[in-house]
Amino acid sequence: MKFYKFELEGKAVWGIEEGSYLAEIQGDMFSEFRKTGRIVEKDKAVIKAPTVNEIIIAVGANYMEHIKESRSIHVAPKDPVLFVKLPTAVIGHQDVIRLPKNVGRVDYEAEIAVMVKKDLADADEQEAKEAIFGVTCLNDVSARVIQEQDGQWIRAKNFKTFCPVGPCIETDADVNNLSFELRQNGVVKQKSNSKMMIFGIPQLISFISKHIPLRKGDLITTGTPEGIGPLSPGDTVEIEIEGVGILRNTVE
Amino acid sequence: MKFYKFELEGKAVWGIEEGSYLAEIQGDMFSEFRKTGRIVEKDKAVIKAPTVNEIIIAVGANYMEHIKESRSIHVAPKDPVLFVKLPTAVIGHQDVIRLPKNVGRVDYEAEIAVMVKKDLADADEQEAKEAIFGVTCLNDVSARVIQEQDGQWIRAKNFKTFCPVGPCIETDADVNNLSFELRQNGVVKQKSNSKMMIFGIPQLISFISKHIPLRKGDLITTGTPEGIGPLSPGDTVEIEIEGVGILRNTVE
Repeated sequence: MKFYKFELEGKAVWGIEEGSYLAEIQGDMFSEFRKTGRIVEKDKAVIKAPTVNEIIIAVGANYMEHIKESRSIHVAPKDPVLFVKLPTAVIGHQDVIRLPKNVGRVDYEAEIAVMVKKDLADADEQEAKEAIFGVTCLNDVSARVIQEQDGQWIRAKNFKTFCPVGPCIETDADVNNLSFELRQNGVVKQKSNSKMMIFGIPQLISFISKHIPLRKGDLITTGTPEGIGPLSPGDTVEIEIEGVGILRNTVE
Repeated sequence: MKFYKFELEGKAVWGIEEGSYLAEIQGDMFSEFRKTGRIVEKDKAVIKAPTVNEIIIAVGANYMEHIKESRSIHVAPKDPVLFVKLPTAVIGHQDVIRLPKNVGRVDYEAEIAVMVKKDLADADEQEAKEAIFGVTCLNDVSARVIQEQDGQWIRAKNFKTFCPVGPCIETDADVNNLSFELRQNGVVKQKSNSKMMIFGIPQLISFISKHIPLRKGDLITTGTPEGIGPLSPGDTVEIEIEGVGILRNTVE
């Protein structure tokens, strides 16, 4: 099932996809909810980033081929390397990525983001797997020069508009075998599968929960594969996860 | 004026200190508020961490003498180095810091945290200074071995209970000349003044606002001076900022 956050009469609401419509829901989307009867045409809807909580926990260096092309990290990490995407950076499908002035090269990074449907602490991989609600596309936009200068990644990855997320949370995806790609102006630049991750999604969720308590609705983004490259004004960048949808953003 | 968050009839409320009492307030603490008439004795109150928003932006390597003792950073940074303390790590005055198993040395780090009273983007230092609401004490508890292993600081600094904050927000402090110290079991271990910062508080707020939009109520913690050291079970650790108050936590 596909869960969308979208505008309805000027307010952000949650709903599910039904054919070419989005049907508003009420209640707890993670357990029991019902349709309100209000619908909008999907093609005309203003889609919002499908986030529930403010924090997005992010994982770096999780694909071997990306580590080989990276200048900040050179060997596969012993444990997942964690950082954070902030709510002030989040934008939705069709929103505009704005390149800041005087920061040098800014890269796209296609990622699979996963949402958990319950609070988790010290979870093993089986519990982690059972706690998965669904997945969505995330673009971990990164100011590369600042990333290398700071050492810490927070500033480089959290300029305003540097975290496009969406278009929806798909609950029926197989997180252990999920193909995805990124297209820049229609040209495929990144193409991979969650099978290529160094730490798979249930393993990541379990690991994080042993260090940082996870809360129902938290989103975790799971790292980018090889093929990163710079964004330019006028670009259209699309991330597509098989069976989930396309996150499309333009660049200014 | 001192603003406290505390429990009143089982709910967290905000109030101001009046002699030996805390007086509940209603309204917008950053501009107009009024007292409700409900009070509690300060000595008997359950004090909560005085946070408004979930995210705490943190600054590393902001005192030269601490950089000299550090193993993760060796020269004064060209720009402030940013990271994040997460809401799942935050605890209040009198709460217990819990040392996780099998993570090796865990250190205290006394810091001055500052709250802003308005949204800020691209602020100059004068605007930044005018946007300051007040200051409080923060202990940036850090698992040193993991910090060195990961390179990124998020995991090492965000175990549950690793962010004691409090006891209150003091709005009358001079942020450019603020003495503070940390005592472990009554022995002074860190002693410094905000004058010793590499980047002063208005400069930090201005810098951050040029990269990460700040929101009314955001808390920024401004780095630790020299004298860091390991915590042990049974310790009592106190951070005192002159004219603000004492943040006291025990360790288990």
